[in-house]
Amino acid sequence: MQDVSLEALRHSASHILAQALKRLYGKVRLGIGPSIEQGFYYDVEMEHRLVPDDLSAIEEAMKAIVKENLPIESRTLDRKEAIELFSERDEPYKLELIREMPQNEVISIYQQGEFLDLCKGPHVESTGEVKFFKLLSIAGAYWRGSEKNPMLQRVYGTAFYDKKELKQYLFNLEEAKKRDHRKLGRELQLFFFDENIGSGLSVWLPKGAKLRQIIEQYLIEKHEKNGYQYIRTPHLGLSGLWETSGHLSYYRESMFPAMDIEHQQYMVKPMNCPFHMAVYTNDMHSYKELPIRLFELANVYRNEKSGVLHGLLRVRGFTQDDAHIFCMPDQLEQEIKNAMELTRDILNDFGFQQYKIYLSVRDKNNPDQKYIGDPQQWDIIENQFEEIVQRMDLEYQVDPGEAKFYGPAIDIKIKDALHREWQCTTIQVDFNLPTRFKLNYIGEDGQEHLPMVIHRALLGSMERFISILLEHYGGDLPVWLAPVQIRLVPISDDNLAYVLKVAQSLKDHGFRAEVDQRNDRMNAKIRRAEKEKIPFVAIAGKTEEEESTLSIRLRHGKNLGNMPIASFIELMEQYVREKTCAA
Amino acid sequence: MQDVSLEALRHSASHILAQALKRLYGKVRLGIGPSIEQGFYYDVEMEHRLVPDDLSAIEEAMKAIVKENLPIESRTLDRKEAIELFSERDEPYKLELIREMPQNEVISIYQQGEFLDLCKGPHVESTGEVKFFKLLSIAGAYWRGSEKNPMLQRVYGTAFYDKKELKQYLFNLEEAKKRDHRKLGRELQLFFFDENIGSGLSVWLPKGAKLRQIIEQYLIEKHEKNGYQYIRTPHLGLSGLWETSGHLSYYRESMFPAMDIEHQQYMVKPMNCPFHMAVYTNDMHSYKELPIRLFELANVYRNEKSGVLHGLLRVRGFTQDDAHIFCMPDQLEQEIKNAMELTRDILNDFGFQQYKIYLSVRDKNNPDQKYIGDPQQWDIIENQFEEIVQRMDLEYQVDPGEAKFYGPAIDIKIKDALHREWQCTTIQVDFNLPTRFKLNYIGEDGQEHLPMVIHRALLGSMERFISILLEHYGGDLPVWLAPVQIRLVPISDDNLAYVLKVAQSLKDHGFRAEVDQRNDRMNAKIRRAEKEKIPFVAIAGKTEEEESTLSIRLRHGKNLGNMPIASFIELMEQYVREKTCAA
Repeated sequence: MQDVSLEALRHSASHILAQALKRLYGKVRLGIGPSIEQGFYYDVEMEHRLVPDDLSAIEEAMKAIVKENLPIESRTLDRKEAIELFSERDEPYKLELIREMPQNEVISIYQQGEFLDLCKGPHVESTGEVKFFKLLSIAGAYWRGSEKNPMLQRVYGTAFYDKKELKQYLFNLEEAKKRDHRKLGRELQLFFFDENIGSGLSVWLPKGAKLRQIIEQYLIEKHEKNGYQYIRTPHLGLSGLWETSGHLSYYRESMFPAMDIEHQQYMVKPMNCPFHMAVYTNDMHSYKELPIRLFELANVYRNEKSGVLHGLLRVRGFTQDDAHIFCMPDQLEQEIKNAMELTRDILNDFGFQQYKIYLSVRDKNNPDQKYIGDPQQWDIIENQFEEIVQRMDLEYQVDPGEAKFYGPAIDIKIKDALHREWQCTTIQVDFNLPTRFKLNYIGEDGQEHLPMVIHRALLGSMERFISILLEHYGGDLPVWLAPVQIRLVPISDDNLAYVLKVAQSLKDHGFRAEVDQRNDRMNAKIRRAEKEKIPFVAIAGKTEEEESTLSIRLRHGKNLGNMPIASFIELMEQYVREKTCAA
Repeated sequence: MQDVSLEALRHSASHILAQALKRLYGKVRLGIGPSIEQGFYYDVEMEHRLVPDDLSAIEEAMKAIVKENLPIESRTLDRKEAIELFSERDEPYKLELIREMPQNEVISIYQQGEFLDLCKGPHVESTGEVKFFKLLSIAGAYWRGSEKNPMLQRVYGTAFYDKKELKQYLFNLEEAKKRDHRKLGRELQLFFFDENIGSGLSVWLPKGAKLRQIIEQYLIEKHEKNGYQYIRTPHLGLSGLWETSGHLSYYRESMFPAMDIEHQQYMVKPMNCPFHMAVYTNDMHSYKELPIRLFELANVYRNEKSGVLHGLLRVRGFTQDDAHIFCMPDQLEQEIKNAMELTRDILNDFGFQQYKIYLSVRDKNNPDQKYIGDPQQWDIIENQFEEIVQRMDLEYQVDPGEAKFYGPAIDIKIKDALHREWQCTTIQVDFNLPTRFKLNYIGEDGQEHLPMVIHRALLGSMERFISILLEHYGGDLPVWLAPVQIRLVPISDDNLAYVLKVAQSLKDHGFRAEVDQRNDRMNAKIRRAEKEKIPFVAIAGKTEEEESTLSIRLRHGKNLGNMPIASFIELMEQYVREKTCAA
């Protein structure tokens, strides 16, 4: 939720921006200028084509308006007066907006000095209050978002009440650019995209594949320890699977088209559910076996529009850490609780301590929304959700109307180092699948019963999660995740044999160690290792060889000095065990 | 190669079979009756519909013919005589064959007693020589393989000179049935197929997925130790990839059809090559970096006809242990040698000591066969192949004309416990890919050069290899591969806590241990573990608990008696290290 007074401040900043533009460039026709989540913008039509270098002059003009401390005053007009006023001032876009308003609507305008705008407010009281602002960028934007309309010029900016907050925001913005996972992916040689291969399909280079392998191995072990069974299902299947699940009727647009093989339609899977249902129905089940928890690292493909693709955050092919839990109704609460605790545990291991829980429940006041399943069961589960997150002492928000038609869900957004929220985890109860796939188990009474199904992905997508991880750490991955943990550098060729021996010993201890044998100077090798964000650089010359030590540097230059190899191994083991960075 | 005299023996056995059928069923019209790789068959048309129970009566009639020791004599006829003879005997199928022969062809017939056949021989001298034979099965077969022709009845059999060989063959046949991987896959709950999911698409249950995970983990480590880099590429890509590789022009029929996304054609990959080429060309390469070895566990999909699908042996979706090696011409020999040694090493780890090498080279005498690449380079490589296998002291065979147009190859067939040969490994030099994908590296001279590419898969396909592995071991997987290595059985509930503690300690040592906590009697639990082919059953009662021991049984009942836990762990570690079975 946006702070109302911050919204007013930013809205006023957008008016000051428009006023400054008019002062600087004369004939400027106003589009709209709202406050937005992270700041504000104003869309204008004018002859001068803005370039980034113009922004500082505009800021200066804005500062002058702030200094003038003009009162910001509102008044109301009737329709006729408003049309006259904005016709006089040659503001065709404002006129268009007024003409579309209902006939008897009272029209509100805000004025500060010579500047006035059609506007509902609210605003701060005078321009002098807008002390801490910054213009950020220029873009083109079609009037009212339609490409049939003229293209206006948009200036983005932000404003805060507090100087430190503005500074932090601008710092985060710069950081986010530096931490852009697409940039890091290239620099650290983790993955790439190739238009000849296809949009939204990531290719994983050795270091990226190693990172994935570490995470996937970790996930499989973690899930097995928590009573899940790891399975593997095909990447494609007959279209009938998604007819049964219902995806073909409401999700077809997001699916890749079918492939005809011997008059049968095969599709690459957009969802994994039908396969896990098939694994369940492949055998009979007794109540004694429940809960059954099937886990897969499932490669799914979705037909996302090329326009919305964005690095690893939004792709066409991705890998879900997908599981379906089959249980009896009286086991549901415990299973949800276990899934929540496993989520907390896993996110914690990856270094995410902050997250927000969203409970997607029914909107009971909206009779148009249809839900399948027993309303009483919905009530019970929605209550259980709230009790569970309360007992776990987690920050949460209830979102009525956000539940899918087939069941309520717990969604979790993690907060990264730059305080951005990322949707990752979803834990959903599914009333749809058990009936559609005719699931059953034999109860204690010897009769067939319908099991409950929980559908959950904790990290969400491997690709997306890795992009968040990279941006969270700015590429400085914790030691347990770093594809290369130690780069060993011999001071001269005389020490190479020693360094190779030590490297082998580190490898035998399960560490990912590499020796830089290139024909380069030592300092170049150290700089290269730091650029590759390798947690440890271990340097060895005559002294180290004689003393059986290594001279250890962390990736941002901190020098740990000479360490006996055994101590270094202990240190590494501690980092890996505690899943911490080394910086 | 088939032994010529064994072929004659079996061919004679097929005549004796036909003679016996005529004696038993009167009006029998003869189709053809050749010797085949593992025996012989005869196709006949007759009124009586054969059932398996008839086979022993037919065998008795055959034994009588053998006892009569009829001389087998050949003579030649001209076309007219032959037509007269077979018209008289009402053999319309033989007449059809005669009429299709060239006008002046001399026609040969073989006769034994009252039976005669159109036949080129060779045969043994008399029916008395065919001492050791066995009829095996009955099938239907269209005359000359065409469904437009009448369906004949086929009787299969086999024959040997040596009684022991026949016995061994029949034993192997029974064993092969017992070891059928489809049967074992079901019984051991490893994988299944589901017609609702699609033909030839395997679904891996927890134990099967575990087996795959063990093998894949092993392969990744083994390859990394041998200088390969593990990468991951998408399961689909734009059709242009296979236009560039050339697959679309000569392999399209085996590919799944294209999927249209925003007017671009996507295809699930039948081959991995274009992706590995893209990884190579994603960066510049210097001669100093070569050889570069890219390895992937690549999921490919091929449009196999549903009629040829067979369990895991022939599927539509499979996972190759695929690698491409990029090297300079003078590195090629060493790289081939390394790949061969890695193959030997890996096959040995899986317990395959016997295999046969096939060198697929050009047919220099056939001017119609076109090969790309420099003939001199072909000569060099073909010679290198032979030198390498000779130096490695491996049994091999040169197959002229078997090379693909794009390069020579070394193919390896492994022999399983039943002496069956299975094609697994292929190591191919590819003259096609480097030019098509415009690969290059900067040489020592600062100029661009074309690298060589070796394309290799050592196990071939994970699915196929696992089916061979299962049949080779009859499901008794070596300890390092067994999805569950130890099943712990408490003698009574009093010992459960002890058994659970021991199980946890075994797990902490990295073993896959399970406790059978079902409400069953101890003997039932032991039987179940043996049926599941779990290498070790560890039983613990009062004595074991007091002595901190386990009573260990191997999966086929052998009792190792009570062992201290530490000794058992040592024993297990030895089995895992030595990659041996426990039986």
